[in-house]
Amino acid sequence: MLAYEIVRKKLDGEANSEGEIRALVDGFVRGEIAPEQMAAWLAAVYVRGLSDEETWWLTKAMAESGRMLDLSAIDGIKVDKHSTGGVGDKVSIVAVPLVAAGGVPVAKLTGRALGHTGGTADKLESIPGMRLDLSEAEFIGQVQRIGCAIAVATEDIAPADKKIYALRDKTATIASIPLIVSSILSKKLAGGADAFVFDVKFGDGAFMRQLEEAKALAEGLVRTAKLAGKRAVAVLSSMEQPLGHAVGNAVEVAEAIAVLRGEGPTDVREVCLTVAAHMLWLGGVVSDPQEGRRKAEELLGSGAALEKFRQLVAAQGGDASIVDDPKRLPQPNHRAEVRAEREGVVTQIATRRLGLLAARLGAGRLGARAWTQRRGFGCTKKSAILFRRARCWRRCKVPAPLRRSWWRKGRRVLGLGRKRLPCRWWRG
Amino acid sequence: MLAYEIVRKKLDGEANSEGEIRALVDGFVRGEIAPEQMAAWLAAVYVRGLSDEETWWLTKAMAESGRMLDLSAIDGIKVDKHSTGGVGDKVSIVAVPLVAAGGVPVAKLTGRALGHTGGTADKLESIPGMRLDLSEAEFIGQVQRIGCAIAVATEDIAPADKKIYALRDKTATIASIPLIVSSILSKKLAGGADAFVFDVKFGDGAFMRQLEEAKALAEGLVRTAKLAGKRAVAVLSSMEQPLGHAVGNAVEVAEAIAVLRGEGPTDVREVCLTVAAHMLWLGGVVSDPQEGRRKAEELLGSGAALEKFRQLVAAQGGDASIVDDPKRLPQPNHRAEVRAEREGVVTQIATRRLGLLAARLGAGRLGARAWTQRRGFGCTKKSAILFRRARCWRRCKVPAPLRRSWWRKGRRVLGLGRKRLPCRWWRG
Repeated sequence: MLAYEIVRKKLDGEANSEGEIRALVDGFVRGEIAPEQMAAWLAAVYVRGLSDEETWWLTKAMAESGRMLDLSAIDGIKVDKHSTGGVGDKVSIVAVPLVAAGGVPVAKLTGRALGHTGGTADKLESIPGMRLDLSEAEFIGQVQRIGCAIAVATEDIAPADKKIYALRDKTATIASIPLIVSSILSKKLAGGADAFVFDVKFGDGAFMRQLEEAKALAEGLVRTAKLAGKRAVAVLSSMEQPLGHAVGNAVEVAEAIAVLRGEGPTDVREVCLTVAAHMLWLGGVVSDPQEGRRKAEELLGSGAALEKFRQLVAAQGGDASIVDDPKRLPQPNHRAEVRAEREGVVTQIATRRLGLLAARLGAGRLGARAWTQRRGFGCTKKSAILFRRARCWRRCKVPAPLRRSWWRKGRRVLGLGRKRLPCRWWRG
Repeated sequence: MLAYEIVRKKLDGEANSEGEIRALVDGFVRGEIAPEQMAAWLAAVYVRGLSDEETWWLTKAMAESGRMLDLSAIDGIKVDKHSTGGVGDKVSIVAVPLVAAGGVPVAKLTGRALGHTGGTADKLESIPGMRLDLSEAEFIGQVQRIGCAIAVATEDIAPADKKIYALRDKTATIASIPLIVSSILSKKLAGGADAFVFDVKFGDGAFMRQLEEAKALAEGLVRTAKLAGKRAVAVLSSMEQPLGHAVGNAVEVAEAIAVLRGEGPTDVREVCLTVAAHMLWLGGVVSDPQEGRRKAEELLGSGAALEKFRQLVAAQGGDASIVDDPKRLPQPNHRAEVRAEREGVVTQIATRRLGLLAARLGAGRLGARAWTQRRGFGCTKKSAILFRRARCWRRCKVPAPLRRSWWRKGRRVLGLGRKRLPCRWWRG
């Protein structure tokens, strides 16, 4: 009857207490509260919302449902970053070594591909030999030694989130700001860092389609982190087009290496510099984000960030020679060209569709499907480029010859017209 | 993914189509849609509501989830009644033979006790030999022969309602007007009548505590019945005190017989006359409810209604001699008196608590507990009666000696003060 009363209160728009939320989360994880009851509560939260306090209590109960990493053995202010997920988002691969090169320790737990978005873990595992299943001792020891580590979050990190997320996925209750905040922040808090930069994506290729929703999520993350006693900054960035040109595992690692060399697409570089600038500031090595940005630019220009990435790959068993020779990364077996049907300027990129297309080509994982590092495809052209009829507008590197249906899908990804695709950036 | 989209629409406040609602109900009954998904949809409906059309589509899908009785073999306009449930509500036992005596056929499917309220089936089964498990052929044949029959709804009447109700009971989504409307009306439609009178109770002893809620339910029932192509009237009646003096099985049958004799408590008689007046009007034997009321009064005064009840009991295998000698009904084994602690007028009756007390004494059924017809208790005094200190204010006929804790519970049922308990009636 306790669960009944907790659900009823939320259905009727009343507040739940800290004890009620804790009882709900713990009971659900232990199997004492039925999935139907939790589903009704999640639906009630979806419509009624949660106050900041309720969001924090939910986050806390979820974080404390499993192992909480203790990073106190690592000197300095540990800063973590989190992206809400987009297509072609390889920012972590650049930002983690970049910030560590600047003297701020980064102990990053990361995830796998989800839906139309790739996962940093999947991408890094395309480097031959690279291990992401570090033990807690290996993880902490490596940050103490070289200043950074990237590992896959184990099953015992916020198990309540895994169970609740699966239920939300089934009951159409994913798109709720307080539920997203608690899902993201519970895992981050269990990861043990002192401060966070949240890279909140919006637009077609993001989970939040509207800028307003993304702003609300960014504010929710920062407010809830504050209630948790953590400093946090949110950065907003557009996912109306893929980030950079590469979408897939090995191809994105190659593009990240280009950015670490001081090259690479402007948009990827821009988001990496913005995220790193705020991480350096939260880590206390610069006095403001502007100084952080100048420092980050220097670290890219001097090769210090690339050197730190080389150390990171080597420390985790990876073939560090790919840093100097990205051609050693797994290469696609096939190439395909999708041609435009008429002349025009790219006015729109169906980024979500592109991400799903990449995932179905094997670049990521969709549901429980196997994936290989070898797969992936790169975009050679993107927005604001004039195409003539019958000229190639998309050159794909693909793992197998494309079936006819893919051509149609590929064509539908880009919209042609007369106005250029706007390219917008916001900062937190 | 279909269920996902149906749930998402309702969560986002969008309308569901007839096909979507049908797919949801059918899929849930067949076990193809998970209870978690149905729970989320019910929670969304609880908060967002349903339009009149959606309510009707839900009702229709639930009614058609099982057997639909075909009463076309019975001549005339078949009129059914339904009470939303209260404490001491024996109206069906009076109204069914009363209306049938007036020439309107009544084929009534009825239910068991629920929570703090009794069930007409349980009450009638306290008559020795009385059967309520009639087959469809027996049920229809009896209405053709004597004009009325009362049977327990079988498991195959609106099975979707049973499954959905159990889920609502678990997920705190009982108190939703469109869900209550669809639950009541789906069973009534499956019962096959042409027109309905709904006796909607409000107040402490009803499921709807507030008059406003009961009005909304009454309007929802009538509007949805109209969409189903059925004429319907709703009557509102107060449950701030039990109906009549008897609460229990055999004792309520005895009180109903008193009303059928033209005697009995005024409040029971009043609700019975109001319900019967509208049933006679819908049945087309009188030109308006006022004439229906006069006719109903005549039928009680002339003994015609009592004679019809005698036929009803005999037709269903019951001992018809109880009609002339209600003392032949099962009698309580014990008597107990609960005394007031001070002088005063009864200003309040905790009707729900009284109903639960009666149920726990064995007068009804609570959950899966067994019940016997022998049990029950009668109130000899009710509202607006001045009590002197230490005078008996409640004489209970009980099945076993009362434990000490019951005395305290018994005392807390009545509130004493200086102002009389208001007695209000509304008509549809």
